[in-house]
Amino acid sequence: MSSAVSPLAPTEVPEMPAIAGVRLATAAAGIRYKNRTDVLLAMLDPGTTVAGVFTQSKCPSAPVEWCRAKLKGGKARVLVVNSGNANAFTGKTGKQSTALTAQIAAKAAGCKQEEVFLASTGVIGEPLDATKFNGVLDQLAEDAEPANWMASAQAIMTTDTFAKVATATVKLGKARVNICGMAKGAGMIAPDMATMLSFVFTDAPISAPALQALLKAGVEDTFNAVTIDGDTSTSDTLLAFATGAAADNGAPKISRASDPRLKAFVKAFNEVLADLAEQVARDGEGARKLIEIVVEGAKTKQSARRIAMSIANSPLVKTAVAGEDANWGRVVMAVGKAGEPADRDKLSISFNGIRVATRGARDPSYDEKEVSAAMKQPEIQIKVALGLGKGKDRVLTCDLTKEYVAINGDYRS
Amino acid sequence: MSSAVSPLAPTEVPEMPAIAGVRLATAAAGIRYKNRTDVLLAMLDPGTTVAGVFTQSKCPSAPVEWCRAKLKGGKARVLVVNSGNANAFTGKTGKQSTALTAQIAAKAAGCKQEEVFLASTGVIGEPLDATKFNGVLDQLAEDAEPANWMASAQAIMTTDTFAKVATATVKLGKARVNICGMAKGAGMIAPDMATMLSFVFTDAPISAPALQALLKAGVEDTFNAVTIDGDTSTSDTLLAFATGAAADNGAPKISRASDPRLKAFVKAFNEVLADLAEQVARDGEGARKLIEIVVEGAKTKQSARRIAMSIANSPLVKTAVAGEDANWGRVVMAVGKAGEPADRDKLSISFNGIRVATRGARDPSYDEKEVSAAMKQPEIQIKVALGLGKGKDRVLTCDLTKEYVAINGDYRS
Repeated sequence: MSSAVSPLAPTEVPEMPAIAGVRLATAAAGIRYKNRTDVLLAMLDPGTTVAGVFTQSKCPSAPVEWCRAKLKGGKARVLVVNSGNANAFTGKTGKQSTALTAQIAAKAAGCKQEEVFLASTGVIGEPLDATKFNGVLDQLAEDAEPANWMASAQAIMTTDTFAKVATATVKLGKARVNICGMAKGAGMIAPDMATMLSFVFTDAPISAPALQALLKAGVEDTFNAVTIDGDTSTSDTLLAFATGAAADNGAPKISRASDPRLKAFVKAFNEVLADLAEQVARDGEGARKLIEIVVEGAKTKQSARRIAMSIANSPLVKTAVAGEDANWGRVVMAVGKAGEPADRDKLSISFNGIRVATRGARDPSYDEKEVSAAMKQPEIQIKVALGLGKGKDRVLTCDLTKEYVAINGDYRS
Repeated sequence: MSSAVSPLAPTEVPEMPAIAGVRLATAAAGIRYKNRTDVLLAMLDPGTTVAGVFTQSKCPSAPVEWCRAKLKGGKARVLVVNSGNANAFTGKTGKQSTALTAQIAAKAAGCKQEEVFLASTGVIGEPLDATKFNGVLDQLAEDAEPANWMASAQAIMTTDTFAKVATATVKLGKARVNICGMAKGAGMIAPDMATMLSFVFTDAPISAPALQALLKAGVEDTFNAVTIDGDTSTSDTLLAFATGAAADNGAPKISRASDPRLKAFVKAFNEVLADLAEQVARDGEGARKLIEIVVEGAKTKQSARRIAMSIANSPLVKTAVAGEDANWGRVVMAVGKAGEPADRDKLSISFNGIRVATRGARDPSYDEKEVSAAMKQPEIQIKVALGLGKGKDRVLTCDLTKEYVAINGDYRS
């Protein structure tokens, strides 16, 4: 595992406020790692609503199945997350582990098992010994404190090189409400759902169905528009919790996602999701460059997304960026293989604002030196204009380096 | 570019017979490389029929468009292939280049331009200066000799580390007919069509429509079942030429692919395609392991193919194999993300015949040492049994190494 922090890590960590109704604690349960925390417990006050989106994998992890089932109740009192073991592809044992973890957590939090939410990240296929949570969760429930965000974000890391948090404060009615989120990456990341684990908390009083609708809409251009390696985790989980505590300060209770009073909140909520999703891309395994793919002039937004994803997932494009080579030929290749409407002779491509190809051939004003200098930047924008319609989309990814191979060539051993 | 020969290269090169009606010559036209040949000319006797399959890219190269158009005539007299420049995404200039090359070639071979076939491989987006063929092709037409296979296969190489040839001799009616083929890889290789360039020649008298049908059927489980990096070239071209010269030895003239007399020929023809396709996988950029993915028990063959491709294209599976890690959790991940019917609790996975996972969990008899030893082999078979139906398929790929990143991080510069 790489230990150096990604050169693309944000230079500043935001001031993360407490969310009324949320308390957090972490511990080292010794699940896999030594000398680091690996379990997070979030205590949620009564009345907290919950929403979630999960991996589209046909072989989801046991905790994903657990959460999907419990989401129907719409209420949450405790969240337990462990790193080191994904409890995925663990058969009946996996189910037993989630059941036992939930039992221990429910007892610790003094709630029903239906109000327990679980997530696990780490190695796939190894049984997760849930008895390790015995005692630990009781202690965490006692220790839990508001605003303990950084420690929480650290406890859920696997190959991540930095903790990922984001926050926003916004008016809901006349009351100020807070949103705090955390995420962890960093490989096996492709959309539907995107990152492996992310949790967002707010004190806004929003019903579970409304929160679910917000979340579903919010991921589309954030987490679902990030890809590291095209590989979709069995464990991808994004949960949102709304404690409703801001109602005490006069925040209106929201029952429908279409409520016009939500406008500012939705914007802030999506910004938090976008911020977390971008941090995931910035911490892609072995990443040295953040790559933004912008596709415009496609027939539809969906078509633009597919083309952008084809470029973002192309090993040849990603290695070219790693080599600081403005190899637009490979971008053409990736457009061509997407299977979407594209006319070679209308295509234009630019790297960091410098047009290198236009109308199906090299730009006449192409200046190798100028482009080469631009490719040395840590952030690379590849823009493709198709000239066919008004469909537009944007996807984030990172370059493919030797470090990615090194990290993934000996992760398990 | 890597200069060491792939450790997966075949240890023996077959004796390649002459094909009556085919003569070959190569030259150094100085298109891009120094001190090596970069142009191949194949002279084909009158009466030669032709068939072809090409990239599914929406942005094909100019030579692909040329060949597609000329294929309608069904007749070929000369093939010109250059390496170093793909003449792809070169706009109008690209079309002019193919037209000029065809003009020079037709004059050299004394045939119509409609009987000229072209292929180019190398960098995308750079104009190809076809005037460099002036004089060169005339000389090659004079120099062309039978059985000049190895030099031909060498002239079309780009990042390939070894020349790829294959041959078969088989009875058609009472006559012996020969099949000789060559191919080049080695990156940007994904199915529909698979490798960038491959050419197969036979003296069997087969009509163009019959040859086209054979070729289309033949690629399905050979070239289309190979993937290196999931990237589809703009230039993928497989052409088959049948000179018909064996008719002089009594070979029957075949006009339909369903002709029962073709049975042995079809088998041999497909074996040549399979051999060439496997060599392409063996020479995948940076490859240190040949990986065979076998999926069985899927609902359909198509479903098995999609799952096998999802595994074969997963960077996480490929890096795990590079690291000699039997990381079957990543295989589960890749099965799950394929979007095809799969039941986690019925899934079994083996590496080189050793079952590591069964019925949705680790195999009880799993022995890390035994599996680790097996992973040190240069050839790795990953078998996935889904337990759902009778659909079965097989795909070849290679591992993803730091060398792949190195080769592609500075290919252009």
